[in-house]
Amino acid sequence: MENFDALEALKSYIRFPSVSTDSKFLDGMDNAREYISSILEGIGFNVQIVSTECHPIIYAERFINKDYPHIVLYGHYDVQPADPLGLWKSEAFEPVIKDGRIYGRGSADNKGPTIVHIAAIIKAFKQNANLPLNITYVIEGEEEMGSPSMPKFFDKYYERISRADLMFVSDTGSPNTNQIVITTALRGLVELEVKLKGPQGDLHSGIHGGAVINPLHVLSEIIASLHNKDGSVNIPGFYHGIQEIEPWELNELKQYPLDVDAYKAMLCVEDLHSPRGFSPLEAVRFEPSLEVNGMGGGYQGEGTKTIIPSQAFAKITCRLVSGQESARIQDLVLNALEDRCPSGVQLEVRRGCHANAYSIVPPHKSCTKQGSKVLEKAFKFTDTAIEKHFYKKPLYLREGGSIPVIADFKHRTGLDAIMVGLFTPQDNLHAPNESFDIKLMYQAIDVFSDIFLSFSDI
Amino acid sequence: MENFDALEALKSYIRFPSVSTDSKFLDGMDNAREYISSILEGIGFNVQIVSTECHPIIYAERFINKDYPHIVLYGHYDVQPADPLGLWKSEAFEPVIKDGRIYGRGSADNKGPTIVHIAAIIKAFKQNANLPLNITYVIEGEEEMGSPSMPKFFDKYYERISRADLMFVSDTGSPNTNQIVITTALRGLVELEVKLKGPQGDLHSGIHGGAVINPLHVLSEIIASLHNKDGSVNIPGFYHGIQEIEPWELNELKQYPLDVDAYKAMLCVEDLHSPRGFSPLEAVRFEPSLEVNGMGGGYQGEGTKTIIPSQAFAKITCRLVSGQESARIQDLVLNALEDRCPSGVQLEVRRGCHANAYSIVPPHKSCTKQGSKVLEKAFKFTDTAIEKHFYKKPLYLREGGSIPVIADFKHRTGLDAIMVGLFTPQDNLHAPNESFDIKLMYQAIDVFSDIFLSFSDI
Repeated sequence: MENFDALEALKSYIRFPSVSTDSKFLDGMDNAREYISSILEGIGFNVQIVSTECHPIIYAERFINKDYPHIVLYGHYDVQPADPLGLWKSEAFEPVIKDGRIYGRGSADNKGPTIVHIAAIIKAFKQNANLPLNITYVIEGEEEMGSPSMPKFFDKYYERISRADLMFVSDTGSPNTNQIVITTALRGLVELEVKLKGPQGDLHSGIHGGAVINPLHVLSEIIASLHNKDGSVNIPGFYHGIQEIEPWELNELKQYPLDVDAYKAMLCVEDLHSPRGFSPLEAVRFEPSLEVNGMGGGYQGEGTKTIIPSQAFAKITCRLVSGQESARIQDLVLNALEDRCPSGVQLEVRRGCHANAYSIVPPHKSCTKQGSKVLEKAFKFTDTAIEKHFYKKPLYLREGGSIPVIADFKHRTGLDAIMVGLFTPQDNLHAPNESFDIKLMYQAIDVFSDIFLSFSDI
Repeated sequence: MENFDALEALKSYIRFPSVSTDSKFLDGMDNAREYISSILEGIGFNVQIVSTECHPIIYAERFINKDYPHIVLYGHYDVQPADPLGLWKSEAFEPVIKDGRIYGRGSADNKGPTIVHIAAIIKAFKQNANLPLNITYVIEGEEEMGSPSMPKFFDKYYERISRADLMFVSDTGSPNTNQIVITTALRGLVELEVKLKGPQGDLHSGIHGGAVINPLHVLSEIIASLHNKDGSVNIPGFYHGIQEIEPWELNELKQYPLDVDAYKAMLCVEDLHSPRGFSPLEAVRFEPSLEVNGMGGGYQGEGTKTIIPSQAFAKITCRLVSGQESARIQDLVLNALEDRCPSGVQLEVRRGCHANAYSIVPPHKSCTKQGSKVLEKAFKFTDTAIEKHFYKKPLYLREGGSIPVIADFKHRTGLDAIMVGLFTPQDNLHAPNESFDIKLMYQAIDVFSDIFLSFSDI
């Protein structure tokens, strides 16, 4: 790996169409996995391909001495589907470089950051071939499917993973290429699917309109009842026990380089609405939320079809913050839905997944918990390296999104994660024309190389 | 036409797949039209095929003497699409006779009743070849499309149609094969299509959830606001000016051979909900209604997609009763939708069609208006013939459905309609396995033959 070229490696990696949710791409999955495995082998890792019920997990170790610090690097080799293909300006799986960015599905999520970690290791090893650091790689192939095989994996690899000191993850965002964010919390997630059944079949809305309860009316009433006028969630107990916001968190957010007007412009909306007196930028980080992600019923085609629909559905997800217990929140929402359903329609609620929020407090904050010395030092190394290569200290901020596997790592193996955000809003994650900033990639390689090398000072 | 066999004629007529809304069936439309035209020519009608922007109208006259009574027979030769084909127990366009019913798309709506009228004319002519009755046939090919060509047709044929005394229509229902209903009112119709636009594209519900107004939440609130707790429509002015219910109407309804429990069982619902203290069977006849016929937005597929959808839509129709002005009601609903839309989303409302209710009061009722003597006699002939052949007097009832072209006939040519209901709930109109009762067909032929012959007594 003398001449490892990070950009060329990322290009090759993007060319393997590793879409986990579509069996047409099984070859792409196999090839992407083999590509990364062979690189890791090439730089001295002991690579195991851990089979699962679906896509295997790459588990790779460089274990030198149990007295050395030990880090886990988590990533995923699967990517989102590229659909809708018609909106791509270049081929989704043929990387194109333009204006300092590399375009292609997975370039940012999560192939770019994986290449960053690998290139940083290679760079660090060049400076110190005997780097006193144990490294374990966990690169799964089902992240875009919700990581269904990870619980079994944690059971099987508990001992080997739990002896590590911490984990690095780069699967979160920063506001722009100058201001890196270290994510201190991820929101939890609760999924529910609601079906309302009225008459056995669609009814003629002329002949029966006025006598029969319309499932779409009932569903609208129930959905409308789930929020209060101030935008807060109208479910008793929903906010119970949530973690206080610390002054240092508000201070960090004050330095966030995006104001409400810029946020509005970014989203192309005229107005933002956030609950309970929180500003929009606070709300997405500090507050739980409930959103209807999809809803429907009755005639969906062009023009008019005069029916009372037989059914209606809604897909609901909640985002949770620390202190909310996801199983309990799922119960509360389910109970509210059932309580608010009148007679004449049948309510069916399917519980989807639920996952708690994850949070980690960096050292020396008002609410820092007692953690390992290695973790504390790792934060310091990360902070220093980012300031050196990005010319600015990182911001420590909660993020609105969810990566349930991170909370699961913590819950099942005890590992905490330092999440260095390498995505920017320009990356178009999960959307057409996904891309990754090339300058940021090289800066991030320098950051992680410095972090890894710093462990020799422990 | 010596040996006209009504059942064989209906079989042949059903075999022409005359689906007006699907251009694949243009041949079926042509053949169905030619089939009926040639029968009418064969029994002495002067047939004109009136071209329109889409499907031609059959206009046929037997005009003998301007001093004779003159009736119009309205019907339509187009049928609903047969979809979903998989739910048919026999071929949709190949008639099958089973248990006293003839199955096939259009068997009831409206091919059976058209054959009834024709067979009755043939039968009447056999008894009285010189029947002193002018007859005009109007059989359109766009009823299932909302009769878009009829207004131009009325303009062009105004003089020839407006000189008639009344119209017979058999495009309405009766509760069973023993109890014929003469429909005294059809509800009007107002269509509106609502689109709500939020962010320009779907947003990640984790990253932005809690800051951005969700179009599905807003739409649910607006839809929920359109009804009061008692089921009435919550739009100021909606009920203004509606026609009083007469005691004789309630008396007729008391004789309706279906109670609320049987109605529930028929619709397979546990509970019925009707507004403002009306019983369900009253509500569908005497009350206006507002129904959401279709609604949707966001993710519609399996599982979960954690987005805040960019758009949401709803398709709304109102059914109106006499006294409500349809253009005004459309305005009221539109204004309510606009008034109830918060900032942060954009509301677009498309006005669809609007049509007033139609009503006709039979002679000697508390609210009978001065009408033509011929109309009054026609009601008497109809009443007598139905009692003779069905062994029961007809009931005079309003119906919940809408046939906008009937109100249009009245509005544009002055003609009132005697609507003898030949459909029963078993007919599966607009649904798979449509059928028509064969015994009822023959009884109805006798009824109409008697009615036509009675005109010689005027």
